[in-house]
Amino acid sequence: MAKSSNSEKLYRKAEKVLAGGVSRNTVFRQPYPNYANSASGCYITDIEGIERIDFANNMAALIHGHSFPPVVDAVIEQLRKGTAYTLASEIEVAFAQHLIKRVKSFERIRFTNSGTEAVMAMIKASRAFTEKAKIAKAEGSYHGTYDFAEVSQTANPSNWGKIDRPSSVPLAHGTPVGVSKDVLIYPYNDIERTLAILDRQAGQIACVIIDPVPHRVGLVPGNDDFIRAVYDWTRRNGALMVFDEVVTFRVNYGGAQQKYTVQPDLTSLGKIIGGGFPVGAVAGRADVMKVFDPHEKSLLLPYSGTFSANPITMTAGYKAMEYFDKTAVKKLNALAQKAVSQIREVIRLADVPVSVTGAGSMFRMHLRPTPPTTYREAYQSKEVSDVVKELLDFMYYKENVLMINTFSCMLSTVMTPKEIDRLTEGLHRAFVELKPKIDKLNLK
Amino acid sequence: MAKSSNSEKLYRKAEKVLAGGVSRNTVFRQPYPNYANSASGCYITDIEGIERIDFANNMAALIHGHSFPPVVDAVIEQLRKGTAYTLASEIEVAFAQHLIKRVKSFERIRFTNSGTEAVMAMIKASRAFTEKAKIAKAEGSYHGTYDFAEVSQTANPSNWGKIDRPSSVPLAHGTPVGVSKDVLIYPYNDIERTLAILDRQAGQIACVIIDPVPHRVGLVPGNDDFIRAVYDWTRRNGALMVFDEVVTFRVNYGGAQQKYTVQPDLTSLGKIIGGGFPVGAVAGRADVMKVFDPHEKSLLLPYSGTFSANPITMTAGYKAMEYFDKTAVKKLNALAQKAVSQIREVIRLADVPVSVTGAGSMFRMHLRPTPPTTYREAYQSKEVSDVVKELLDFMYYKENVLMINTFSCMLSTVMTPKEIDRLTEGLHRAFVELKPKIDKLNLK
Repeated sequence: MAKSSNSEKLYRKAEKVLAGGVSRNTVFRQPYPNYANSASGCYITDIEGIERIDFANNMAALIHGHSFPPVVDAVIEQLRKGTAYTLASEIEVAFAQHLIKRVKSFERIRFTNSGTEAVMAMIKASRAFTEKAKIAKAEGSYHGTYDFAEVSQTANPSNWGKIDRPSSVPLAHGTPVGVSKDVLIYPYNDIERTLAILDRQAGQIACVIIDPVPHRVGLVPGNDDFIRAVYDWTRRNGALMVFDEVVTFRVNYGGAQQKYTVQPDLTSLGKIIGGGFPVGAVAGRADVMKVFDPHEKSLLLPYSGTFSANPITMTAGYKAMEYFDKTAVKKLNALAQKAVSQIREVIRLADVPVSVTGAGSMFRMHLRPTPPTTYREAYQSKEVSDVVKELLDFMYYKENVLMINTFSCMLSTVMTPKEIDRLTEGLHRAFVELKPKIDKLNLK
Repeated sequence: MAKSSNSEKLYRKAEKVLAGGVSRNTVFRQPYPNYANSASGCYITDIEGIERIDFANNMAALIHGHSFPPVVDAVIEQLRKGTAYTLASEIEVAFAQHLIKRVKSFERIRFTNSGTEAVMAMIKASRAFTEKAKIAKAEGSYHGTYDFAEVSQTANPSNWGKIDRPSSVPLAHGTPVGVSKDVLIYPYNDIERTLAILDRQAGQIACVIIDPVPHRVGLVPGNDDFIRAVYDWTRRNGALMVFDEVVTFRVNYGGAQQKYTVQPDLTSLGKIIGGGFPVGAVAGRADVMKVFDPHEKSLLLPYSGTFSANPITMTAGYKAMEYFDKTAVKKLNALAQKAVSQIREVIRLADVPVSVTGAGSMFRMHLRPTPPTTYREAYQSKEVSDVVKELLDFMYYKENVLMINTFSCMLSTVMTPKEIDRLTEGLHRAFVELKPKIDKLNLK
């Protein structure tokens, strides 16, 4: 933590004006957060002048890293023509066309300002279309900060209840009891238990939300059998199956949903489709999306947003997605494959009980010899998360590698084998250094 | 509606990809929306090449109009350094300091991505702090798209119930019944009825939300007596008084709250503080804002956001607010005063039963001889709103003036008496043209 005095000084000022001194808990770091000065490509430099490789990419939001020239150029051009109007703009139509061409299940789209807003709009659309109030979500999955969507996001052994019937644990203190009552929790990838849970409230469920590669559940992809079982259940019970692809859209050209044999009715998007600017979207079946249509005599779901589909976000997002074409996706995912292979090799070399999960350009490491298959297995006790923090600090301060605080990496297209080598060499040293502590966790 | 063929053609494409053909219902226009090509200062040019004066300013969000050079320059500089990081940035601290210096009630702030998110965060913070579930809001007031915040937003004579006990009318079809049950509706500026309504649920109320100049209630400022009565009630009953200043922050240097003798515990912000980029914020008492603090042993309100406090929004917002200094506020509000005087003059000249309400740089016209004092008075029947639409179309297509679809104007600092003259001359012609219809509305 040497040479961090600029960040420390700034943080002392920040504490006096920002709640907890930060704007996002994700950037919080003990004893104080670091501050970025600038970033370019896959490198980010803090205000001490230290350059690091950025494997976090603003929580998976940057698919081409920072200051991607085609995005910068296009945004500058749009900037001089205005950033937001009370009129529509051509670019939102072009970008919608592009996204709809990419994904089979997308027939209509509506843009929002964040993934949180996208998930909220998706849930509200599901309720408006089905006339049912309840939703089902996976234990441990993260879907933004709408209270219905965040139930059981951080459920823990003290409150999660029996696996046959996981408790609906509100996240925020003071959440109205009605919220948890309207949210069913299912165990991810567990067909039998999930269907039994859904059956108990059949007829009341508007939608089952699935993140096809849920980061906090363990970054383990949903099985096709599981997805199909949920899909079939929703067909039989007048419910929708909806995907949260805010994070996972990067996994394939048409999102993580591309590889399944059934398609979601609605999908929420965010992160990479904004090209580095605030964005969200909900897309899906035309008949369902009609709930947003102001032409309808009785508009079922009034939904606007001052900055929704603003031409800067649309311009940046469209440009970013154009460059994330099939070739780029393939190349990026191959690089991630290479990274995972190398990491497995250093795990072997360092002889530590560590496993890796992931999909596409995302992977996550777990301090256990076999990959977790459920949220409850992936759940980190205080002892485990303390060692994860040490590993992250080792990587950040000694190896100059920025990762996501779940011990995950989200690659960008501007990365090369050189950065992957630095990552894996750094991890090797980190594993060797912390081997005694990692081993100890697994003796229990 | 001549020469609109480019917009029409584009809209035919938009219908195939966007729900209802639009991204925001606010830009929807019959028979099809218009598309912006570019905008500069207070002028906006559509894709037919027609230039109009922009009195809508992206639904009040642009305080310096479009492409304000200091914002454009600062954003370009930041663009080349990155748009979003998984680290904190210096500019969020500087901007937070600036906002806190402006407003007495701001002790700590947290940034979000939109006004909707800001109001949601404010409500969740109120619940977390007070450990109570219910909220109270004014009938007809708009607070974004969080379902708790949108109850009774468009209540109408068929469902609004008795004024002594206004019904909680859910906005979106399929809203869970628990939502409306947790939202009390009070009649704005009506001390006696409001306190009686609050009293009935005393002990269960987390916060009373007040928009100090609620646009859809009639753009009539809250009386100091009313605000104070609510404030006193909240002190006696363990509740918070919170302001939604997403729209109204432009009213004065320290927001609309500046003129009251009591101050809100929390305030939500958005619109102008983003300098043209997606933004929201919640600010207020340090002890209440502690619910967001990740240092706390038990974090009461986990709240993050991928793009929250992104350095582009922070840079643009800070620059915009720096230029909206006390002198600029005074000058802008004087220009609005001049506009309102001139409008009153043309109302007299055209001899139409029209009144004007507003505050600061905002004003709204009503097709009734005296200004409405309540939402129920301001409520527009279909007959009234049809004439309003005709007036708006007259102004838009014949006078080349873009207004907000409530027949309102939100001025920007780059406007001069020349634009005000064009507005008032246009309104004069519109009033003369539509006088028979306006008169007829008032014969009932």
